[in-house]
Amino acid sequence: MSKPGFEQKLTDFKEYLKKMKSYEEAIGLLYWDMRTGAPKKGIATRSEVVGMLSGEYFALSVSEQMGEMLEYFKEPDTYAQLSRTDRTIVDECKKEYDRSKKIPQKLHQEYVVLTSQAESVWEEAKEASDYKMFQPYLEKIVATNLEFIKLWGYEGHKYNTLLDMYEPGMTVSKLDQVFGALREKVVPLLAAIQQSNHKPTTGFLQQTFEKEKQKQFSLFILKQMGYDFEAGRLDETVHPFATGLNPGDVRITTRYLLDDVNSALFGTIHEGGHALYEQNISPKLIGTPLCTGTSMGIHESQSRFWENMIGRSRPFWRRYFGDLQQNYPGQFASVSVEDYYRATNEVKPSLIRIEADELTYNLHIMVRYEIEKALFSESVSVADLPEVWNEKYKEYLGVVPNNDGEGVLQDVHWAGGSFGYFPSYALGNMYAAQIGRTLRKELPDFDQLIEEGKLLPIKDWLTDKIYQYGKELSPNEIILQVTGEELNPDYLVDYLTEKYSDIYKL
Amino acid sequence: MSKPGFEQKLTDFKEYLKKMKSYEEAIGLLYWDMRTGAPKKGIATRSEVVGMLSGEYFALSVSEQMGEMLEYFKEPDTYAQLSRTDRTIVDECKKEYDRSKKIPQKLHQEYVVLTSQAESVWEEAKEASDYKMFQPYLEKIVATNLEFIKLWGYEGHKYNTLLDMYEPGMTVSKLDQVFGALREKVVPLLAAIQQSNHKPTTGFLQQTFEKEKQKQFSLFILKQMGYDFEAGRLDETVHPFATGLNPGDVRITTRYLLDDVNSALFGTIHEGGHALYEQNISPKLIGTPLCTGTSMGIHESQSRFWENMIGRSRPFWRRYFGDLQQNYPGQFASVSVEDYYRATNEVKPSLIRIEADELTYNLHIMVRYEIEKALFSESVSVADLPEVWNEKYKEYLGVVPNNDGEGVLQDVHWAGGSFGYFPSYALGNMYAAQIGRTLRKELPDFDQLIEEGKLLPIKDWLTDKIYQYGKELSPNEIILQVTGEELNPDYLVDYLTEKYSDIYKL
Repeated sequence: MSKPGFEQKLTDFKEYLKKMKSYEEAIGLLYWDMRTGAPKKGIATRSEVVGMLSGEYFALSVSEQMGEMLEYFKEPDTYAQLSRTDRTIVDECKKEYDRSKKIPQKLHQEYVVLTSQAESVWEEAKEASDYKMFQPYLEKIVATNLEFIKLWGYEGHKYNTLLDMYEPGMTVSKLDQVFGALREKVVPLLAAIQQSNHKPTTGFLQQTFEKEKQKQFSLFILKQMGYDFEAGRLDETVHPFATGLNPGDVRITTRYLLDDVNSALFGTIHEGGHALYEQNISPKLIGTPLCTGTSMGIHESQSRFWENMIGRSRPFWRRYFGDLQQNYPGQFASVSVEDYYRATNEVKPSLIRIEADELTYNLHIMVRYEIEKALFSESVSVADLPEVWNEKYKEYLGVVPNNDGEGVLQDVHWAGGSFGYFPSYALGNMYAAQIGRTLRKELPDFDQLIEEGKLLPIKDWLTDKIYQYGKELSPNEIILQVTGEELNPDYLVDYLTEKYSDIYKL
Repeated sequence: MSKPGFEQKLTDFKEYLKKMKSYEEAIGLLYWDMRTGAPKKGIATRSEVVGMLSGEYFALSVSEQMGEMLEYFKEPDTYAQLSRTDRTIVDECKKEYDRSKKIPQKLHQEYVVLTSQAESVWEEAKEASDYKMFQPYLEKIVATNLEFIKLWGYEGHKYNTLLDMYEPGMTVSKLDQVFGALREKVVPLLAAIQQSNHKPTTGFLQQTFEKEKQKQFSLFILKQMGYDFEAGRLDETVHPFATGLNPGDVRITTRYLLDDVNSALFGTIHEGGHALYEQNISPKLIGTPLCTGTSMGIHESQSRFWENMIGRSRPFWRRYFGDLQQNYPGQFASVSVEDYYRATNEVKPSLIRIEADELTYNLHIMVRYEIEKALFSESVSVADLPEVWNEKYKEYLGVVPNNDGEGVLQDVHWAGGSFGYFPSYALGNMYAAQIGRTLRKELPDFDQLIEEGKLLPIKDWLTDKIYQYGKELSPNEIILQVTGEELNPDYLVDYLTEKYSDIYKL
């Protein structure tokens, strides 16, 4: 039997969470605006607005009232009365509450200032290829994260605590296993590809492509994917991103390079994959902390599934290459579908992660993973990172940066303190391959559907299996429920081996 | 000698006000976004976000803490220690505090719901020309405003309390005087114009003008005016507006009509005038409630000064007509500057306020003023408005609407409860002429400057005299300080008489 007041307390709790979510949405829009075209002279004041709203959000997340509500709903007899979804909500809030409560406010504020300064120093340092300039900031950021880990506690490896922030439940031992298995197969596959005599021709990609036409084609493909333009919009930014303000407003951005027809296109499909996830979360989760993707890895699995496993597939180009030819009259007149398909899948070890192909991308991630792991087991010092970076690149990819700008300084993540984030990208590839395997079983005419431009049944399947749940299920629950087994790197290995053996005639 | 804690209390008070201003800025951006392109499926959730933030803002404005702070700073010995600007801030907050405190929360909430419903009913009613549909809502809105006036109190005329919200210090007796004097001269001037044999030729305006070219020309003129694109941007909306989020971010919008070359252009200059005001408020006022225009009338004086007294002036077209011709190759090849100038100043009594020319516009406002005054002296009932409207249009402008859609239902203001707002538009014209008179004395080569495209010294003069002060000075203080006398309608009469006697060769 309900204790008196249970219903009322639950209503109040949900109102409280809705208020928090409203703050998040406002902050999300302010960020979107700052990136898409807010006038620069207004940024200083705008940043204070963001700071104020973030402060209010944080205060709500750790308030005495929140503490009392969580205590109440965590009591076994009240917890038992909650629906499954409501329990997940309570658990999610408790996790955030405990994490935030353990950090002294002063330390948190200093860290916010530190990372904000570090991001602008990093920008300068990258431009100047001057690691020494950035090093003291990175040292402080790593040290502060070690302090956080001490306060939060950890099991097994200190780095686990950071991994868990982006991929709940992920650990070093699991990653060592899956990355190890992956690397073991990817490295020889790469070697074989490099020795192949059947390399794709790519010369026809070296042309100039009008921005307006690139935009038109990107919009066309987004529509084909089932991206809902009444619940989103496409804008232009230097760094493409997707942001889900609420399921009815999920915006994406892209960047048009005049000398690269594929950059904006695959970038748009990638962000479009993220957006499909957010647009199709069940409306019943709106206003709750579960109204978002369940983890960075699962999110990335969706962007990569759409970008690589659909967008860079042969049936996709069998269907859409004609449209591409029409979109750029004369520019691909003498190119065959097959040539275009192979060219978009060229494998080439390179220095820059965000320009990497589908295969070597995973190696870029492993380098970063190894370095982060070493930083948080304190077996490598921040001062040594450039050297370690270059060694690992040579070892994993066979290439060595000419300077730190194209080496250790290339990514913003560490300047922002996002340690534990990088593995999500490779996890995304593994999840995507594993989910794709089940999808092919359940929709056996998968290739046929793509070749006929029927992408909506695929979107609907993913909505049914993944998107609708938002954060109701953990990443592990999702992958278990959808594929019947835990994360398994073999599916990615199989997928890559099959795809590239065919393209490179291995 | 300072009481202990004075400095700290002042610092806290200012932090508190900055927080309120940050809420205002966030809300402003959310509105801008909803109007400029937020996806429609996100609007329902977005409205709740706006509602939450507005609620927080309101709570801060009437909180116990605010009450205590105001009580402290209003004590004669603390008040005496405040700078002049800080006193104005305290007075401004006290005014808002008292006004909000006097309205029971329930009544306020009901009114918010009522006006929000009324706005959508109005839209439908206007479309269908069905006043009866809208009437019950308007009746309730007027009744609620009468209740507000009872709670707020009033001096002289009940309507004064409403006028004061948009034009602090403005009264019915003052408006009766200035509008009376204006009407006495405008009506015979209009009659003479209508009888003139020297009417402008306007046939060449009936062409189609590419949207992109219209946009380019609008941007060009904004730059000439000194609108700072690093502190603003131009977007497209159905109803043009300007919004000052902070002086570094003042955005304007316009609407392009393909068959009207002047609509977007003068609309942009108008909103650009509002924006110059907000962009040039002194940075020292950022984060305070004084960081905005001092009143609707003074604000409107700036939009109208730039639109009409500069944009529709002969020297302006002597300078920019060549650019216009180049912008639309061939379309104005056989048109002379003088013909273009005269065409943009055609006077023609019409039914729709927002399409009215510079002269008859004032009569549209007087009709609305007379009606609002009568509503709040309860000498006319809401049911009679269509009839009263049509009679007044016949009397003031000599035209009668065919239906209520182009008559009493044409404006959104009353649906939103904005009684007392309309007079600002005509006050703006009067202020603009009066300020313009002083400006011509202090920059005797005013016409010459415009003819040479040197608009920046004009902007600088206005910044020095008006813009920088924001709300530090009241409208009356501004007009006194700039022109040496109180609002005087004669300057507008002189300006209009001179301008139109010349154009129509009276």
